[in-house]
Amino acid sequence: MPVSFITVIDFLGTFSFAVAGAFAAMEKKLDPFGVLIIAFATAVGGGTIRDLLIGEMPVAWLGNTAGIYVIFAGALAAIFFGSYLKKMDRMLFLSDAMGLGLFTMIGIQKGLDHGFSTGISIMLGTITGCFGGVLRDVLLNNVPLIFQKEIYASASIAGGLLFFLLVRIEMAAPFASSICILFIFLVRVLAVRWNWSLPKLYVK
Amino acid sequence: MPVSFITVIDFLGTFSFAVAGAFAAMEKKLDPFGVLIIAFATAVGGGTIRDLLIGEMPVAWLGNTAGIYVIFAGALAAIFFGSYLKKMDRMLFLSDAMGLGLFTMIGIQKGLDHGFSTGISIMLGTITGCFGGVLRDVLLNNVPLIFQKEIYASASIAGGLLFFLLVRIEMAAPFASSICILFIFLVRVLAVRWNWSLPKLYVK
Amino acid sequence: MPVSFITVIDFLGTFSFAVAGAFAAMEKKLDPFGVLIIAFATAVGGGTIRDLLIGEMPVAWLGNTAGIYVIFAGALAAIFFGSYLKKMDRMLFLSDAMGLGLFTMIGIQKGLDHGFSTGISIMLGTITGCFGGVLRDVLLNNVPLIFQKEIYASASIAGGLLFFLLVRIEMAAPFASSICILFIFLVRVLAVRWNWSLPKLYVK
Repeated sequence: MPVSFITVIDFLGTFSFAVAGAFAAMEKKLDPFGVLIIAFATAVGGGTIRDLLIGEMPVAWLGNTAGIYVIFAGALAAIFFGSYLKKMDRMLFLSDAMGLGLFTMIGIQKGLDHGFSTGISIMLGTITGCFGGVLRDVLLNNVPLIFQKEIYASASIAGGLLFFLLVRIEMAAPFASSICILFIFLVRVLAVRWNWSLPKLYVK
Repeated sequence: MPVSFITVIDFLGTFSFAVAGAFAAMEKKLDPFGVLIIAFATAVGGGTIRDLLIGEMPVAWLGNTAGIYVIFAGALAAIFFGSYLKKMDRMLFLSDAMGLGLFTMIGIQKGLDHGFSTGISIMLGTITGCFGGVLRDVLLNNVPLIFQKEIYASASIAGGLLFFLLVRIEMAAPFASSICILFIFLVRVLAVRWNWSLPKLYVK
Repeated sequence: MPVSFITVIDFLGTFSFAVAGAFAAMEKKLDPFGVLIIAFATAVGGGTIRDLLIGEMPVAWLGNTAGIYVIFAGALAAIFFGSYLKKMDRMLFLSDAMGLGLFTMIGIQKGLDHGFSTGISIMLGTITGCFGGVLRDVLLNNVPLIFQKEIYASASIAGGLLFFLLVRIEMAAPFASSICILFIFLVRVLAVRWNWSLPKLYVK
């Protein structure tokens, strides 16, 4: 996978996460500073929790100036062009789905680089992809959305399993990662398109 | 204290914490993935926060495959045998109480290993024993239960104080730890049996 | 700035943060242990999150026995002299404002010591000054106050910007830090005095 393509997805994903965070914050009527913080937490939360758990500090985003500008841009875009962005719902959703795929794969790769097992690496991928949203919801005093709504974390987990399956049958890692990212993207798109969701569990 | 006995308590405690987390998540009607995450957070949260504070990374559970299986087992048991487990309330409560004692002692030991003072070591013990439940409640958007209900963290703190008292009067550490664990277990059991609680504080 | 003066502000700031945390916990009718935990989280939360992000572990407060006593003192004072302290509202507010200034500056300094850029250092300053309050509100199941109410984090950010401006025009660092702390203090005092706040953002 060419680096420049990854960079583009990374920026688009970060931007979408920041916009999603800013919208959620504005729905709770926060002030501009709160909106910015929530945009940040949404965009960097997953990678931060992953880095803390594996002990890779300073956490990645502190050294990623370009990423910080992208987050600022996302928050400002949501603040100033909110109504316009809302109309681009579909594009934001698609880049969020691409971001979920890419961030999951980045987390898995970090897990492997640190010598963790398959299972832990998939967990780290899911944490990277999904826990920014969890942090956003905790800060906004909501029950985390991904624990409740349609297929989200499950797409990330399924993609991770697929990646290790492909590597097991000796597909080259760059191919396997690309397929994993695309698979997560597609599962998300199909899940929302056809309203897939996991059954809720009740205490009988 | 023989290692195999500690391992048994550790597994029982982890299992009970995971079941308690899964039940709390099912009460909020989360999907299966959410239930699993909350079971995890409850079981490993305390140790994770302790490891982050003292800088022992990667955090312990990432390398503890057996523990991860126990958590999965606890979450699955809660999901599939919820009604049956509910009838085993008492056994779950007893292993939770044993877990609280053991995890507190593990945290204290880690504090001592890192050269911390008595006070800080007791804090680390209490964090290890109690903060999984705090994390669970924060993720589920509840005010943490242990800040409100009957004696829980106080049992953990009292046990820690007792441990250092026993060591001070030159009891051998393995004996002192065993007594500390049993003491915390008993305080919990008696507190629930006789409905002990701390007074609530109001701003006058 | 003489060290002893910094120590005094540090203690006053820590004390005020602990009292503010304890009051917030008592409003939610927590038990004494919960009040103590929230006082702690409020007082050390910001520095802890900063230390975790930059990887300086064990986190600072674990080694700061004097600070721990100050927090205990603050929590106990709130519990036993709550009604009296309430009448000292103004003094508490003033030391909170001094604390915000000082903690912001301490965070900025840590950022510079670790070789971070201006922007990241200001962020670390703001995290140090403000995120104890965020952690308190998350634990108490409130939407973080600083995201909603009058100028608070913005005062911290503005002070950070002023510091780097002063250093840029070659003012000696000790002078620049003192002015930064005083500036944050004054902005807070004036903001509350004249009820300044940032506009809230709505999704149009």
